[in-house]
Amino acid sequence: MKALISLLTDFGISDPFVAEMKAVIFSICPGVTVVDISHTVEKFNIRGGAFVLSSATPYFPSGTVHVAVVDPGVGSERRPIALETNRSLFVGPDNGLLILAAAREGIRHVYELTNRSLMAEAISSTFHGRDIFASVAAHLASGTPPREAGPEITDYVKLLFAEPEFNRRGVNCEILYIDGFGNIVTNISRKRLAKLNPNRGLALRNRGRHLPLRFVKTYSELCEKELGCLVGSHGFIEIVYRQESAARRLNARIGDDLRITVLLGTTENS
Amino acid sequence: MKALISLLTDFGISDPFVAEMKAVIFSICPGVTVVDISHTVEKFNIRGGAFVLSSATPYFPSGTVHVAVVDPGVGSERRPIALETNRSLFVGPDNGLLILAAAREGIRHVYELTNRSLMAEAISSTFHGRDIFASVAAHLASGTPPREAGPEITDYVKLLFAEPEFNRRGVNCEILYIDGFGNIVTNISRKRLAKLNPNRGLALRNRGRHLPLRFVKTYSELCEKELGCLVGSHGFIEIVYRQESAARRLNARIGDDLRITVLLGTTENS
Amino acid sequence: MKALISLLTDFGISDPFVAEMKAVIFSICPGVTVVDISHTVEKFNIRGGAFVLSSATPYFPSGTVHVAVVDPGVGSERRPIALETNRSLFVGPDNGLLILAAAREGIRHVYELTNRSLMAEAISSTFHGRDIFASVAAHLASGTPPREAGPEITDYVKLLFAEPEFNRRGVNCEILYIDGFGNIVTNISRKRLAKLNPNRGLALRNRGRHLPLRFVKTYSELCEKELGCLVGSHGFIEIVYRQESAARRLNARIGDDLRITVLLGTTENS
Repeated sequence: MKALISLLTDFGISDPFVAEMKAVIFSICPGVTVVDISHTVEKFNIRGGAFVLSSATPYFPSGTVHVAVVDPGVGSERRPIALETNRSLFVGPDNGLLILAAAREGIRHVYELTNRSLMAEAISSTFHGRDIFASVAAHLASGTPPREAGPEITDYVKLLFAEPEFNRRGVNCEILYIDGFGNIVTNISRKRLAKLNPNRGLALRNRGRHLPLRFVKTYSELCEKELGCLVGSHGFIEIVYRQESAARRLNARIGDDLRITVLLGTTENS
Repeated sequence: MKALISLLTDFGISDPFVAEMKAVIFSICPGVTVVDISHTVEKFNIRGGAFVLSSATPYFPSGTVHVAVVDPGVGSERRPIALETNRSLFVGPDNGLLILAAAREGIRHVYELTNRSLMAEAISSTFHGRDIFASVAAHLASGTPPREAGPEITDYVKLLFAEPEFNRRGVNCEILYIDGFGNIVTNISRKRLAKLNPNRGLALRNRGRHLPLRFVKTYSELCEKELGCLVGSHGFIEIVYRQESAARRLNARIGDDLRITVLLGTTENS
Repeated sequence: MKALISLLTDFGISDPFVAEMKAVIFSICPGVTVVDISHTVEKFNIRGGAFVLSSATPYFPSGTVHVAVVDPGVGSERRPIALETNRSLFVGPDNGLLILAAAREGIRHVYELTNRSLMAEAISSTFHGRDIFASVAAHLASGTPPREAGPEITDYVKLLFAEPEFNRRGVNCEILYIDGFGNIVTNISRKRLAKLNPNRGLALRNRGRHLPLRFVKTYSELCEKELGCLVGSHGFIEIVYRQESAARRLNARIGDDLRITVLLGTTENS
């Protein structure tokens, strides 16, 4: 398999930062293929970056080296790390950014990056993405074994996302992500969907009101201006609004709590 | 010729969607070159996407596989298709998006995508871009003959753009596209330009007023704050404004009608 | 070393322009690797483009062909050129855009592009990026010697950036660039830093007030809402604001003058 490196940062697309990372990568590993996952993660938003990274990584071929940099603590005591999973390598800051994606693949080893021979000669205190992470990743993609990057550690930062809480009448969930279409991704995974028994009818509590929420399979089943929910392409329940932004409709933001209520039939006590 | 795949979508650049398509492509066809045409087509704007696609495709080498996804009907009855032209392959939804570009190259065959062995094992009802189009395109780029993708069809959706209407005093035309510089691309092609006899002097009717419109060869011939028109890089007449946005100056939008008047000399009846 | 072409333009990311340049490149030089430096340089801002280009180029492998197009004079008398330096080739308009980056590498030869056999058959008067620059660059990346592109010239445009002015009490400097984080890049290079004796304490004059400016090594040393300065990743002093935009805090823009004052100890006359 041809070497493949993915990049995810909050560096934006106007500045030369991403290009400098790629320039370093191609200097070390000329034939590699580089794929941008996103460079417009909300700045300093580690959880947002972790979600986007974990959404994309399952589709990459095994052996991919994923570099991710959302790094408010650059230059401080936070450690640079590489993680080896059952199918990929991850390189970035030890601030939880990599964990969600890596944990899904099964983490085998985590190494602190200390081997200076894999890094730039001069390391900027503000741009480890270029001088440490891109450089180490290119060496790994070229075949350097991850254990040569530095000592194994176990006390790396874990980033936990909340689980939805189900009760008799519905579920309290959290907004993991809002995509560019304004679709609201909740933390209810496909396999927990059965608990909701969605075909009985759902409602979303929003500012004291209950809004009907039709469970559908595709966007196009919804009428105009109708709120719906469906299993999104990453396996989580999403709140959607036909051809418009559900997030704007509900004034929703990443991290907000949501309450989805199951509408009860007349044969049950309410 | 090395395999080449182009991508055009309205997915934006922040979400992981485009990266997931590329990850699927590189998993199936590791050595391929992928070129992004645009991922910031206005959301759900099939005509805008069709124009951008048709502008870029003539410059690609023959044999390129073009994947385009602007797909408000994803998951509904609209069919996934592949088109074979005299020089390229096109993969995307059967909603007219591909037709303008494909028709320019001469359409040979259109196939409905039904061969599940060329698609992802599990197909999300909201993300055919990843699970059908990217996957099929990667197989085509790897050498799978298009006829293996599914049965040939002839009742595919055609998307028609209006033709400009010329009369004795000028032309009624339509805005096909507004580019990032604010240049207004009309539907008057270079070869129909002669009908306008532009060197006699032109004016643009805008909210009841006639604005002089100087016909020039390059932007730099215009003075500051002077409106002009020229043959743009895609072969259509464009309305331009020196180093500023003509679209903002005229409050113009894609799809608007425009009236360009030929200024008459004094020897003619007016 | 595998052929590598970098691209920098002010074309934005929505229009098909950049894709057309890449399509031309891959048609001529199929195996090349293309790296985007930035396509969202402020439109027509040659100095901004020159700074971004010169920041990124040092990290590319030697032999890279850099194509840069910020070109308000396209189609006018301004010449298309190629520069050969001690480690790279540069292709673009003769308006100063390439000079800052090229001069850092030592300019050997500058050629006016006149050899039509290296260009598109039909050259649009508004899009030399595609029909001249991308085409010539792809031929150079394929091994065509730069001297075949046209006659050597010496009267090319030089673009000069101001030098900071030091005096007894501080320094008058200029804002070279503001990055996407809002960090303000000044024209004070690392090696001129000693003149400031920054550890004695600094202040920034802003609208008649003196704001304390702590000299730090990394962003994370700063407290919230504290202004600081540090040596940025491109070797210039940057004014930064912890996890927020210093540019917005100070209402600063590219090209603005800044005055940084050295705070004097009590043992000195004030």
